[in-house]
Amino acid sequence: MRETTEDLHDVLGAGLEAADPARAVGNFLSVTDGEMVVGEERFPTDRLFVLSVGKAAGAMAAAASSLLSGIEHSGLVVTKYDHRPGPESYETLFAAHPEPDRAGVEAARRVTEAVEPLGEGDVLLALISGGASALLADPTPPVELSEIKDLTTALLKSGASIEEINCVRKHVSVLKGGGLVELAAPARTLALLLSDVVGDDLSSIASGLTAPDPTTLDKAKDILRRYDIVPSTSITELLAEADETPKEGDRIFAGVTNVLCGSGRVSVVAAADRCGELGYAPLILSTSVTGDCRGIASVYAAVVREVLESGNPVPAPCAIVSGGEATVTVRGDGVGGPNQEFSLALALELDGVPGWAAFAVDTDGNDGPTDSAGGLVDGGTAGRIREAELEPEDALRVNDSRSALRAAGALLETGPTGTNVNDLRVALVGGGADG
Amino acid sequence: MRETTEDLHDVLGAGLEAADPARAVGNFLSVTDGEMVVGEERFPTDRLFVLSVGKAAGAMAAAASSLLSGIEHSGLVVTKYDHRPGPESYETLFAAHPEPDRAGVEAARRVTEAVEPLGEGDVLLALISGGASALLADPTPPVELSEIKDLTTALLKSGASIEEINCVRKHVSVLKGGGLVELAAPARTLALLLSDVVGDDLSSIASGLTAPDPTTLDKAKDILRRYDIVPSTSITELLAEADETPKEGDRIFAGVTNVLCGSGRVSVVAAADRCGELGYAPLILSTSVTGDCRGIASVYAAVVREVLESGNPVPAPCAIVSGGEATVTVRGDGVGGPNQEFSLALALELDGVPGWAAFAVDTDGNDGPTDSAGGLVDGGTAGRIREAELEPEDALRVNDSRSALRAAGALLETGPTGTNVNDLRVALVGGGADG
Repeated sequence: MRETTEDLHDVLGAGLEAADPARAVGNFLSVTDGEMVVGEERFPTDRLFVLSVGKAAGAMAAAASSLLSGIEHSGLVVTKYDHRPGPESYETLFAAHPEPDRAGVEAARRVTEAVEPLGEGDVLLALISGGASALLADPTPPVELSEIKDLTTALLKSGASIEEINCVRKHVSVLKGGGLVELAAPARTLALLLSDVVGDDLSSIASGLTAPDPTTLDKAKDILRRYDIVPSTSITELLAEADETPKEGDRIFAGVTNVLCGSGRVSVVAAADRCGELGYAPLILSTSVTGDCRGIASVYAAVVREVLESGNPVPAPCAIVSGGEATVTVRGDGVGGPNQEFSLALALELDGVPGWAAFAVDTDGNDGPTDSAGGLVDGGTAGRIREAELEPEDALRVNDSRSALRAAGALLETGPTGTNVNDLRVALVGGGADG
Repeated sequence: MRETTEDLHDVLGAGLEAADPARAVGNFLSVTDGEMVVGEERFPTDRLFVLSVGKAAGAMAAAASSLLSGIEHSGLVVTKYDHRPGPESYETLFAAHPEPDRAGVEAARRVTEAVEPLGEGDVLLALISGGASALLADPTPPVELSEIKDLTTALLKSGASIEEINCVRKHVSVLKGGGLVELAAPARTLALLLSDVVGDDLSSIASGLTAPDPTTLDKAKDILRRYDIVPSTSITELLAEADETPKEGDRIFAGVTNVLCGSGRVSVVAAADRCGELGYAPLILSTSVTGDCRGIASVYAAVVREVLESGNPVPAPCAIVSGGEATVTVRGDGVGGPNQEFSLALALELDGVPGWAAFAVDTDGNDGPTDSAGGLVDGGTAGRIREAELEPEDALRVNDSRSALRAAGALLETGPTGTNVNDLRVALVGGGADG
């Protein structure tokens, strides 16, 4: 058991390390002969401007600044209040997240001012992490932030989906929906994206600052019509005259390179690789598992049982690995998060079953509203909760996973990791996993 | 698309065929030199008695009768009202299911009378299918059926689990918990079991008529104490004096051979093998997936997406196969069942995604309270529902999967199959699966 727990911590470390913002930048960006290089592509620059936006902006900027020390350049960092600032040689602005504020409007204005003058031969290095969309509050003038907020509230109330809301917002924003690269052109844009979006759709990460917009102006107008929403006069006038957002195949994107430098997938693959090195044949179930955490735990339990009984879907010793973003269905007023509740549910489904152990974490280190990252459980966890005179079934019933796991010493605490690539779940079956 | 649908029907046929009661018996039972043979084991008989109990008892008995035509024997069939009777040479009794009735008490008495006289050199061939537990209403005299019913109701009200209720019931029953083989001894017992229990635990199928009982009399008394239940006087007196049920390792089981002749696992493996023959690399996720059907659909959707994006957990063309028993969380007053709702949810999760198609069925042919077996869907199904002017999202919200699937021609109808090995789900990805 001791050995398996150590293996799980080792695998967790590999998964988190792969999502580390500095490492994500360092894995892709280098300098050769005084030129910036990504993969096989060289980016010679007359003038280089580094823009780092998001909750991991400080760490990504620091890594870039250190890598690019041989190239003269300037930089701007926009991150959330109380988050790590960029290096001293860069300017750092702070703004609000998830609700945008005036500082975010000012930040978007500063970004526009800095990027617009770039010309032929210049390069914009955009370092983008989760939260960038809110941190850059960029309504197209004369539209005000308050009008966008009112519009968003109205759309949410009407039952519009997040995709629909984002479609409308992209068409009343300066930078979102590819606007940033349009501003930077004719300079080339190299974007390194640390994705916090399940599925890693480039047009969804940070509302697609550097990606072609698959939605259209007509679609945005349709959505307002369908939900019977009349926006403010300035938004209505803007939509009537607005240009289409840049699209896939537009000439402008010939000068744009988008690189996914970190994502749930990267973490899942790194964790799976580490499992393999430790002697557990890894099976990546999916990098995009969403839905209620208890349903996911049911399927995980069924897969673990099957491995133990028949060697399907993969013979033990093996590792069942997945990513994505689970949710909690609120049933009571307990304290926990989707990864803690997944862990508790799995411990109960496989209560007393030897031969397995598993963890589930939110890679940002904060599972749900708690400051625990998740749980690490095995077939003895439910028994240990009962020994501590708590009823694990009752705890699960009222979403009180945190105190139940804590009682069994099954909470995982990583502290804030400074990154976010959603959930990571690994079950080890067989081998040292004797639960 | 046409080809993929045909492949799915082919795979479904293979899965159902493997669960066919007559075929299940025929796959394991044969006669050589006038002796009954199962696998390598011969069963020479002075006297052979065939007892077939359960909802598939008629079909299993008919198959056995035909195979054993060269061996003189008699037979007794106990099945549900309106179900297929046994062959003419056997006696057939009908009783109630799932609520036992007086006819079930009489049936259990007849079984006892027929089996008790068997002696050294005789063989009891027990053919057991789902429902046998209720069809044989076998309270230990002088306990009455009504007292057992009252006890069960009290246990259910107290929040006792099905396992706990079955533990208590086995200790106040004549045949359950291994009682049948105890009665038949010193005759040998050969049991062919068609399992309707997820996980195929022999002591759970038909309340373990022919299996060692892992529960104990002390445990049964503990359970009554824990839930503060005072049963009728005759049950209390019985429990005070009762003998322990037969246990694993008891000498009596040396003469007992239990063979799982059909089960969800057998169907899942047969379906997976057929997928392989058709060119789809099969991945058996699990034979025991339980829980809410929408949660299972979320995970299935994530796995299909992953196959399409990265070739994990198995490269396309492939088949993701699972069994078990899904449930519906009631949210509205629509008509459907867990397999239809799984199908609709999957169609919505992968709406517009090409390259996959899937079915989910209840192998008894009746999904939930409906006379449809399940659904067969692909990336175009949700669109076809909309073309029929229904909103698939709304249908899913109120559990109205049946009419939505029907509108898209996506209902699967097999008619009653005469067997039950729970759910079977197969998703084909890649290859001809162009949705």
